Amino acid sequence: MALRGIDVAAAESPLMRTPLDELVDLLDLEQIEVNIFRGRSPEERQQRVFGGQVAGQALVAAGRTVPIDRPVHSLHAYFLRPGDPAVPIVYTVDRLRDGRSFTTRRVVAVQHGEAIFNLSASFQVREEGLDHEWDAPPAPDPESLPTMAERMKAYAEKVPDFVLRPRPIDVRHVDDPPWIARLSGKGHPQQMVWMRADGRLPDEELVHVCALTYASDMTLLDSIMLPHEVSWEQLRGASLDHAMWFHRPFRADEWFLYVQESPSAYGARGLARGLIYDREGQLIVSVVQEGLMRLVRSRR
Amino acid sequence: MALRGIDVAAAESPLMRTPLDELVDLLDLEQIEVNIFRGRSPEERQQRVFGGQVAGQALVAAGRTVPIDRPVHSLHAYFLRPGDPAVPIVYTVDRLRDGRSFTTRRVVAVQHGEAIFNLSASFQVREEGLDHEWDAPPAPDPESLPTMAERMKAYAEKVPDFVLRPRPIDVRHVDDPPWIARLSGKGHPQQMVWMRADGRLPDEELVHVCALTYASDMTLLDSIMLPHEVSWEQLRGASLDHAMWFHRPFRADEWFLYVQESPSAYGARGLARGLIYDREGQLIVSVVQEGLMRLVRSRR
Repeated sequence: MALRGIDVAAAESPLMRTPLDELVDLLDLEQIEVNIFRGRSPEERQQRVFGGQVAGQALVAAGRTVPIDRPVHSLHAYFLRPGDPAVPIVYTVDRLRDGRSFTTRRVVAVQHGEAIFNLSASFQVREEGLDHEWDAPPAPDPESLPTMAERMKAYAEKVPDFVLRPRPIDVRHVDDPPWIARLSGKGHPQQMVWMRADGRLPDEELVHVCALTYASDMTLLDSIMLPHEVSWEQLRGASLDHAMWFHRPFRADEWFLYVQESPSAYGARGLARGLIYDREGQLIVSVVQEGLMRLVRSRR
Repeated sequence: MALRGIDVAAAESPLMRTPLDELVDLLDLEQIEVNIFRGRSPEERQQRVFGGQVAGQALVAAGRTVPIDRPVHSLHAYFLRPGDPAVPIVYTVDRLRDGRSFTTRRVVAVQHGEAIFNLSASFQVREEGLDHEWDAPPAPDPESLPTMAERMKAYAEKVPDFVLRPRPIDVRHVDDPPWIARLSGKGHPQQMVWMRADGRLPDEELVHVCALTYASDMTLLDSIMLPHEVSWEQLRGASLDHAMWFHRPFRADEWFLYVQESPSAYGARGLARGLIYDREGQLIVSVVQEGLMRLVRSRR
């Protein structure tokens, strides 16, 4: 299959850049001044910048101003305006607090003179303490599940070009994703997805955190649609905010299970919550995101 | 019982201010300039300002700069430094965005020249859309449960004075709260608490939202302790952040059921999540908060 072919060829050739190389490159921001960074978007013909990219880049900007022995433990962000992929994004960091144990940063992403994204993040020295975690739910091995390319095979002629492009994250839905399963409107608003960076990442901890942040914005809002007889074509959807709590250390290039659920939809918004487990069943990250889910008139 | 007696007397006398009157008064910020507000703390001998008070006041400041036909639908905040109850708190509002459907604000709370609290909040015009919600779990009626004063009766001589003071929120734990139940270290990290403003609130929607924001910072971190054989005396605890999503309209002076759970504790931090249902079982609010849970050496 062509898609998979490109992917494998890319991974095998040292001269050809893989989508993951491109993601690592996007996360490697250019430093303009002590607290100012500049990032670019992929050279793709997309109308908007992917939210996970902006969140990942903003977290890189924050993290670059914090000693590396203080890993990030949480972030809270609002998406304010759609990003323009044609021009760079400038990230300015506000050093809110440098405390004895905690460091807090705020990052504003700007394009065309306007804030497109606002993020706060907190970093902490390593400490020991109480330890408990929920058990991971049972799930089939990721290797036993079809790749996104395999799932898309049947739809190659129906979907826009960019959907078929190789991606930096290997995404394996445990069940048919909502855009393949014909929605009966009776589904329980819960789904599980295995993910990992599609290749090897550098060892730097911040890269793993930001790659997972990038991935965490994928598929999450789909869980809101499961109980409804609607498709994305009938909705105007967008991420409104994004919050993450990094509980335990992890590598984003090893499989993680993203368990997603939606407690509520109302007022053209839906809430989705995610718990992310590593392959050993450790709870590594919690995610919450609210999405705009505005019904639009069908084009037909 | 004395405590309850004071409470009832206060509610019946138009001349005596109830704790709820005091809360409503605290939420009625003084406007210093278009985007600058000033709030005070209760005249109590406490070492720190209660986090829920700062969150509620900050949300009032944000809300005062937004048209009233755009209710708040979410907030994200970090607690940066302990608040000093002896001096006023100044709230400055940054008008991040005024969009067609959404308005976003950022508020910084300052004391002694330093930021003590950073909040972002988003407001939206009323819209219709997809509608689903989880069912409320079964719970006994709040009227059948002991008041906080009744629960504290047996401990009147053991606890600090401020614990016994009448509060603006009527709090009824469904089970023994963790600080009464001798912790076996085997409890499932979940608890349920009925709450409501202890008296009648004005009809203004923002007051109800901010009163519930105030209440949402109470009892939530307790759920993190349930699986552990520890007491608050053995912990240095503090709210690190606070996030809320306001799904459906509600009144904070009617009973709401706060269902709290803790998926994880690790690295001297614990995560607590809450879902809040009204008495009719409608899911009205979601809450997530991370707390510092640092083990300290026992004083014994």
